Amino acid sequence: MRDFLPAEKNRRERVLAVIRERYRAHGFDEIETPVMEEYGRLHSGIGGDNEKLAFNVLKRGLDSEAIAAAADDLSALTDLGLRYDLTVPLARFYATNRGRLPSVFRSIQIAPVWRAERPQKGRYRQFVQCDIDIIGDASARAEAELAVATLDALDALGLEGGSIRINDRRALEWMLDSFGFSVEERPSVLITIDKLDKLGYEGVVAEMRARGVTATAVDAFEAFGLRPMTMEYHPYGERQIRKALPDGAPDDIVAHLVGIGTAVAATRLAQSEIGDLPLVFDPFLVRGMGYYTGTIFELAHPSVAYSLGGGGRYDGMIGGFLGQDVPAVGFSLGFERLVDLLDAGHDAASPAIVLVHDRDVPIGELLALKTALIGEGSRVRLEERTKNLKALLERAASDGYAAFATVVAGATRDQLEIKSLD
Amino acid sequence: MRDFLPAEKNRRERVLAVIRERYRAHGFDEIETPVMEEYGRLHSGIGGDNEKLAFNVLKRGLDSEAIAAAADDLSALTDLGLRYDLTVPLARFYATNRGRLPSVFRSIQIAPVWRAERPQKGRYRQFVQCDIDIIGDASARAEAELAVATLDALDALGLEGGSIRINDRRALEWMLDSFGFSVEERPSVLITIDKLDKLGYEGVVAEMRARGVTATAVDAFEAFGLRPMTMEYHPYGERQIRKALPDGAPDDIVAHLVGIGTAVAATRLAQSEIGDLPLVFDPFLVRGMGYYTGTIFELAHPSVAYSLGGGGRYDGMIGGFLGQDVPAVGFSLGFERLVDLLDAGHDAASPAIVLVHDRDVPIGELLALKTALIGEGSRVRLEERTKNLKALLERAASDGYAAFATVVAGATRDQLEIKSLD
Repeated sequence: MRDFLPAEKNRRERVLAVIRERYRAHGFDEIETPVMEEYGRLHSGIGGDNEKLAFNVLKRGLDSEAIAAAADDLSALTDLGLRYDLTVPLARFYATNRGRLPSVFRSIQIAPVWRAERPQKGRYRQFVQCDIDIIGDASARAEAELAVATLDALDALGLEGGSIRINDRRALEWMLDSFGFSVEERPSVLITIDKLDKLGYEGVVAEMRARGVTATAVDAFEAFGLRPMTMEYHPYGERQIRKALPDGAPDDIVAHLVGIGTAVAATRLAQSEIGDLPLVFDPFLVRGMGYYTGTIFELAHPSVAYSLGGGGRYDGMIGGFLGQDVPAVGFSLGFERLVDLLDAGHDAASPAIVLVHDRDVPIGELLALKTALIGEGSRVRLEERTKNLKALLERAASDGYAAFATVVAGATRDQLEIKSLD
Repeated sequence: MRDFLPAEKNRRERVLAVIRERYRAHGFDEIETPVMEEYGRLHSGIGGDNEKLAFNVLKRGLDSEAIAAAADDLSALTDLGLRYDLTVPLARFYATNRGRLPSVFRSIQIAPVWRAERPQKGRYRQFVQCDIDIIGDASARAEAELAVATLDALDALGLEGGSIRINDRRALEWMLDSFGFSVEERPSVLITIDKLDKLGYEGVVAEMRARGVTATAVDAFEAFGLRPMTMEYHPYGERQIRKALPDGAPDDIVAHLVGIGTAVAATRLAQSEIGDLPLVFDPFLVRGMGYYTGTIFELAHPSVAYSLGGGGRYDGMIGGFLGQDVPAVGFSLGFERLVDLLDAGHDAASPAIVLVHDRDVPIGELLALKTALIGEGSRVRLEERTKNLKALLERAASDGYAAFATVVAGATRDQLEIKSLD
């Protein structure tokens, strides 16, 4: 877990403000849920591996007897936990508040989550997730709205040229079935396919063989890999999708994937300098979470090799809470990665001035000057002059201040000479 | 704990944005600390009664043996807790990061805290605190900067006419001493004086007598109350402060209190239509927290009987972490009360439009229209027409949307007729 000092906190808030503003423009509405949810809900199975990483909160008012009795049952000690993602709380929120929400509900959640992970570089036990979700729309329009809003937010952050890799869990399942993998071995086969970026196609085939899954299925998978896989250079559309899948892919799945492209193509975004659609069909995109039921996607940007976010359709989850089927699809921006990627820059909104003063300037004079500058629209910090003025000004610059002025006793606003800190 | 639906979440974010912008203008810098702090730090005594209300987090990886062994020692089960205020984390933050902060550090913290309180109306177990603190300045300038920034934020929220009640813990101590209360009985006497608003002066005297504290001291307190207590109608300054205290109040304490007024008077704020200074000396203001060592204050507004925030000087606390004296003073705005007080209003920044469409409008057409309006600077939500159009539009209005347009298949941007929802 980290402390955020002023410069970093400011940078994070500015990135969040841009994302929030763009998502709101696209008709998403921000909500907030408590950081703690019921223990049982956090450990119902839908959180996958993240459930094991949850921080659990001790029940209040436990006495020695209760603790001793709980030795064999951890859940007797805890009734609440910190959320490990924003999807489980969203499903609970929707089930609780459904009557007060639009029939198609587009949510924004920008909030911290906690995972008790072993500390490693670039990973933190508290980090911010930044999710948009559409609940109540089973059509490809939902995926298209998520994709367009996400790419627009990325553009607004100065990261033009992003694209979205798309696949469908049902297409994956059908493909594995058509190769001849059994239902039982498919989960482990998917874990292997998910390593394609690292192992390469041959490496994936080798790992499948080493795992001893149905040999004829692996043969079919290997043969399929010999087909030209140049889909990244074809425009997104039915022809490319069918080409990238084994022959005979189900029409409904292909139609849904094509529908996303049609809708995205209708937006301005598609008419930008990107030329082609900013969508790439990837038949081997897997995504780890078990709850995905249809479309899955990942956000890519030419400046980085890793994904900047991802998501997918999870039509089954909310039904589990409500006892009634509710379609849902979400996209999570990798906020911590985005912040690391973006320049600090200056806060253009308001000029920030440091007033450096001698100790003998009366408090009233200082506050009068400060207030006058604030009234002119500036952000103003008072600093008593130190022996090392250079160090003082350098720190102010690193805190985002752009100018300074020196104040002596008796100075008026007109006598202040404001100099740049650059 | 509460869910925040879109309209409420939006209102909260807008109030926070105004406060944050004003505090930053006054040279305060926002920081963020993790929501969890070490158990030992949260239970070191400085948190007062709030320590008992902390949510404690279970250690990870506990087995039955460890739990059984912990039966007589709760702290063996927990190593972290959720913060119950922002002051203890700030002191820890300052001790950790001091070398990277300005010599006078002005912090903003806007963040949730948690207390395991018994649920009652208007109180929540998760709520947002909104603190500014100045660390490293022992002079009255610090109090004045806090007061001016706080009143400016209140003005910016549309709550002009706020004022600040001021006292000094040292003045209180001296006054009780001068009446003849013993050191031992002073804490309980302060608890009684803190009920002055509820009990009235006579009620306070009666409760003191019932508690059996030194009778001659109560007599002196009672006699003091017979002096005319019209301080609220005198301008804030030395004469009024001396008049409101028993004769012979220590010069250094009075000088510090007067210094705050001199500094605030130098700001524009003092020249506003308020006429007098927005400060009121109140010799019976107590404030509950044990860590206050000097000035204490509370924010008042004519529209409400309760306080909208408060704070004070706590010069001893950070020294406890650092082993070195560091002056500090803070002010906490009552964010949850402010939000309840303020009107929802409309989001003036960008026009918000609901596009109501028939089911048969192709997805691509809908997204093209939506994107065109977003490009014009609007916020746009798609809604499929329902039988009860009126209910649909009413909910959109309550979510902050200001206009709507009906979309039929084949419609172009120019054909859209945008109507107000009012």
